[in-house]
Amino acid sequence: MIRRITSPADVRAMDPEQLTALAAEIRDFLVQQVSVRGGHLGPNLGVVELTLALHRVFDSPADPIVFDTGHQAYVHKIVTGRSDGFGALRTRGGLSGYPSREESVHDWVENSHASTSLSYADGLAKAFAVRGERNRTVVGVIGDGAMTGGMAWEALNNIAAAKDRPVVIVLNDNGRSYAPTTGGMAQRMAALRLKPGYERLLDQVKHTLPKAPVVGGPMYSALHAMKTAVKDWLLPPVMFADLGLKYLGPIDGHDIAELEQALRRAKGFRGPVLVHVLTRKGQGYPPAENDDLEQMHSPPAFDPLTGRPVAVPTATWTGVFSHELVRAGRDRDDLVAITAAMSGPTGLDAFAAEFPDRFHDVGIAEQHALTSAAGLAMGGVHPVVALYATFLNRAFDQLLMDAALHRLGVTVVLDRAGVTGEDGPSHHGMWDLSLAALVPGLSAAAPRDGQLLAELFAEAIAVEDGPTLLRYPKGAVPEPIPAVRRIVADEDRLVPAAGGVGSVDVLAEPAAGQEHDVLLVAVGAFAGAAMDAAARLADQGIGVTVVDPRWALPVPTALPLLAAQHRLVVTLEDGGRQGGVGAAVTDLLTDRVPGVPVTVLALPQEFLEAASRGDLLTDLGLTAQAVARRITETVARTFPQSREHTGGSGQDVPERRAAGEG
Amino acid sequence: MIRRITSPADVRAMDPEQLTALAAEIRDFLVQQVSVRGGHLGPNLGVVELTLALHRVFDSPADPIVFDTGHQAYVHKIVTGRSDGFGALRTRGGLSGYPSREESVHDWVENSHASTSLSYADGLAKAFAVRGERNRTVVGVIGDGAMTGGMAWEALNNIAAAKDRPVVIVLNDNGRSYAPTTGGMAQRMAALRLKPGYERLLDQVKHTLPKAPVVGGPMYSALHAMKTAVKDWLLPPVMFADLGLKYLGPIDGHDIAELEQALRRAKGFRGPVLVHVLTRKGQGYPPAENDDLEQMHSPPAFDPLTGRPVAVPTATWTGVFSHELVRAGRDRDDLVAITAAMSGPTGLDAFAAEFPDRFHDVGIAEQHALTSAAGLAMGGVHPVVALYATFLNRAFDQLLMDAALHRLGVTVVLDRAGVTGEDGPSHHGMWDLSLAALVPGLSAAAPRDGQLLAELFAEAIAVEDGPTLLRYPKGAVPEPIPAVRRIVADEDRLVPAAGGVGSVDVLAEPAAGQEHDVLLVAVGAFAGAAMDAAARLADQGIGVTVVDPRWALPVPTALPLLAAQHRLVVTLEDGGRQGGVGAAVTDLLTDRVPGVPVTVLALPQEFLEAASRGDLLTDLGLTAQAVARRITETVARTFPQSREHTGGSGQDVPERRAAGEG
Repeated sequence: MIRRITSPADVRAMDPEQLTALAAEIRDFLVQQVSVRGGHLGPNLGVVELTLALHRVFDSPADPIVFDTGHQAYVHKIVTGRSDGFGALRTRGGLSGYPSREESVHDWVENSHASTSLSYADGLAKAFAVRGERNRTVVGVIGDGAMTGGMAWEALNNIAAAKDRPVVIVLNDNGRSYAPTTGGMAQRMAALRLKPGYERLLDQVKHTLPKAPVVGGPMYSALHAMKTAVKDWLLPPVMFADLGLKYLGPIDGHDIAELEQALRRAKGFRGPVLVHVLTRKGQGYPPAENDDLEQMHSPPAFDPLTGRPVAVPTATWTGVFSHELVRAGRDRDDLVAITAAMSGPTGLDAFAAEFPDRFHDVGIAEQHALTSAAGLAMGGVHPVVALYATFLNRAFDQLLMDAALHRLGVTVVLDRAGVTGEDGPSHHGMWDLSLAALVPGLSAAAPRDGQLLAELFAEAIAVEDGPTLLRYPKGAVPEPIPAVRRIVADEDRLVPAAGGVGSVDVLAEPAAGQEHDVLLVAVGAFAGAAMDAAARLADQGIGVTVVDPRWALPVPTALPLLAAQHRLVVTLEDGGRQGGVGAAVTDLLTDRVPGVPVTVLALPQEFLEAASRGDLLTDLGLTAQAVARRITETVARTFPQSREHTGGSGQDVPERRAAGEG
Repeated sequence: MIRRITSPADVRAMDPEQLTALAAEIRDFLVQQVSVRGGHLGPNLGVVELTLALHRVFDSPADPIVFDTGHQAYVHKIVTGRSDGFGALRTRGGLSGYPSREESVHDWVENSHASTSLSYADGLAKAFAVRGERNRTVVGVIGDGAMTGGMAWEALNNIAAAKDRPVVIVLNDNGRSYAPTTGGMAQRMAALRLKPGYERLLDQVKHTLPKAPVVGGPMYSALHAMKTAVKDWLLPPVMFADLGLKYLGPIDGHDIAELEQALRRAKGFRGPVLVHVLTRKGQGYPPAENDDLEQMHSPPAFDPLTGRPVAVPTATWTGVFSHELVRAGRDRDDLVAITAAMSGPTGLDAFAAEFPDRFHDVGIAEQHALTSAAGLAMGGVHPVVALYATFLNRAFDQLLMDAALHRLGVTVVLDRAGVTGEDGPSHHGMWDLSLAALVPGLSAAAPRDGQLLAELFAEAIAVEDGPTLLRYPKGAVPEPIPAVRRIVADEDRLVPAAGGVGSVDVLAEPAAGQEHDVLLVAVGAFAGAAMDAAARLADQGIGVTVVDPRWALPVPTALPLLAAQHRLVVTLEDGGRQGGVGAAVTDLLTDRVPGVPVTVLALPQEFLEAASRGDLLTDLGLTAQAVARRITETVARTFPQSREHTGGSGQDVPERRAAGEG
């Protein structure tokens, strides 16, 4: 059946029996397809019936359906005729793992940062009002997890205020959108699930009151008040009514008929209304239903029969951090860990298990994560905030004004930094270093290997007079790269150092007899590529010193001293080139060592597509081979007379686009 | 009495009569002191009794009292012994207009961006729990306006979840923390004010029920439910109870005894509790009480008898924008204006009055402002979002991922950009250009005068395939600076242009016979200083071309062509040097015109103190005189042989710190 669906009209034409069969077929399809190379599974299994009902009731795309956190849109893709694309799900040129406007007019929002859907919906509804398109309804589908984000509250407050703009908010409540949902709201919602039916209880209470009260009279009022009271006691979303939102629910999210009925009522209301839908994450696939560790939220390739991952797990950056955090927690009873609904993926679970009183999952609430961390530091303990790099964007003001302005010892640890791969433009962690560089008093480091991660984390949590930031990529931790020597600037001299902020690691030096041509500043995990590039350049007769700045921001004062010993400085980082480490190095060296030019190798300041990390780095000219070639060309262009071996023709060589070189 | 207060203990020792007299005295004092050179008046007049009660009930600083948006902390400063400082309020070295940790141990938070207090409070309470300091209570004082910010929701959700951490949230509800508060919550709260007293109504309802029901029996339950129902109907904050927060109130915020009683109950609860306090902004001073236009929120110097401003109003940047927005609104019925509780100060009031259906104040909710704007643009209209520059920090992710990733025509207009003066480090608008530079597809402009603001605004709202950003400083608009010529790059040539993104204005050129030594890139309102500096340099024989890039980001391709005609490029901007326009120019020119060095003159990447704009610019070496001197020195250092007139001694001249030059 799936393959025959070309548009929502095909689903609208089905009868109940067909729909039930289709739902089952979709579940099998999802498990099979996602098992091949991974993807979001649990969230999509939970919204099969809901998505079918949405497309039967609303007229997409005239009625926009905006999915919060696009990872719950697989079923929507099937219903809108894209089942064929699942064979190439999340591959270059294949079907995106999120909504994509290039793929379909039914997709509105590509950003998959959470808690945004209601704001989009509010804006769309406002636009339709201005344009006089009153017959359109805007639907926002938001999980209970995303409701913990402040943006959702800002949007609710606005949506509720306009009684005449038709916005249907579908609260997809599975109790653990990412992980078990956090906070007071979640507690209240959980209680709801345990209570007996509202109507039955209301009946019991009604029997205790006199019959047939006069309409409008005091007893009628009393009865009315009573009903409200009982409702309030039973139902969690008084909050929504409090804002002036009409509320429908709770609805069984796996009963298509019940869903359709509620959605039709909501659509007919022509104002702001919230439909509370109870779903089960992973519904219909036991390994995803019974998934306390959230391993089926977005698994890598797995065996569809057992749900077990295909690949053997390797040592990861996340794992190293997780281990070091627990170790530090045992040493220091003032260490507190915070995450924003990313406890497992950022490696905090082990700490949370051992030190539950010193662990806080604040919900999808990066702003609160940072500012409550500032409060923790003010209160005399040391917070460690673990996030994905891309989500730091949402707490820049809090890092700046709440942590840094107050010179507080807050340690931010960013996983998934740099090019992340299949999750696409909103998940590449390419903004954090540029943001960090703006924050006065913040020290930022990118460890090159697991050993450095351990060292730098220990140094970070020792800093109590300003924020510190560590960032590392997704995936396996590389082989350690030992330092030739560790040095620090002592006024105008470089002297040996044991470690600490300001010390840098020299990883490679020109061979005896070679000149000190290039200082290659390798930030973080790009150290391996830098070492490889240096070896290639040595073969061409170009002498390269590779230095890992350890704490890259602020730029260590050792770098100008090292730069002065070379003819060219090249920086290499896994972040956006605008305002990043390369820019900061350029700014410092222009001032201190004006005679030595700086070449910045970094990610272009563009939205990068979804593709494997390896493919993207190759495209962007950030492999060892490409880095070596780019340096060779720069040397040839910058010093055309002095070298024969570069083969360049001097100033006349135009710089080729990196992407064109691969 | 005021002058004798050295600490909260003095206030705790007073009897009711003394307190009443003190409150009156404080009001007179505030009006007199603020009238001298301006400051926040309305908010402080509203919290006189509340602040006295807080300090009588809680033991600051052991019990931290965190004020949201520090502008409501004047009374707190008086109570903590700082009345003497009001003579130098908001001057360099004088009393800060916000809490300041340097001033007092009673001040915890210096950032005055809104909606943060509850997150700090949550963090402090968590820290005290870890440290076993269970007897401390944390107090967060938050206005109803700040409650519209998403962070407050994130914090409430977390505070409510921990039943054993004593956090007292004081909701200072005046119905218009900045301006009349926005949204569904505000509508509900406003309804409350019009209703008769809760207790009286409850009594009436009780009389309709049978007397003396059996405790625990069905009628007792019914009565209990009834009470709850009536309460729910009358009181807005069911929402808070819904989250699991204990609620006390509403309390008369101008009755010290009632306030103390409620706060003592709250303190005794030893868990999270919200005290809902109704206050009147401007209480006791008629010009501030009757202040629909919010002119007494933070007035400049005024006559204390009448409340009228002392200075004659001048033409301001805000005024020019306000005029142009209305004009554009008349031309285009698809233009929509959005602000985040800054309608008056950003100049949107006129538009709002003329086009109420196309105006949206979303509350203190910058994230929602940007993402709902993205939704509006998706829906086919053109949104203009007007904010203070410093608050863009809070919507970076939304500007990036929601507007830019989707290539939506959203125009952001930033008032109070650059050095703003007396409001201090959290209000200087020095981050926006660096953030804008990170956003792919965004065009950013800083108009140099009112005429350019009009032109650039017209160009901005014509862009429909990506976000545009305009930014200008606080205060009076300068005299117009005409362009000598307007040009644009046509491949490798510069040709005349009429306008549009990419065209640049040449404002001054070397006199006949003078060499093209320096290309001075003047961003925005610094054009005047640049012109003056160029004239000074011409007198010293240094030929300067002054160019206004108009759309400074992305860097116009005309600039490399102009740069190639000069020996040195200097950029001058009223923003942080890291990652700003100067950095972007450096990056582009290093690539395109590697032989021409770039010197960046900008704000140091530090938190700047509160002082007048003029004093700060002098300190930072950003006056015309200092700019000329810095360029002279750079020329002497960079080209030591070729010029006698510079008087420098070449490479040996160390660059002096700008601040040391003044």
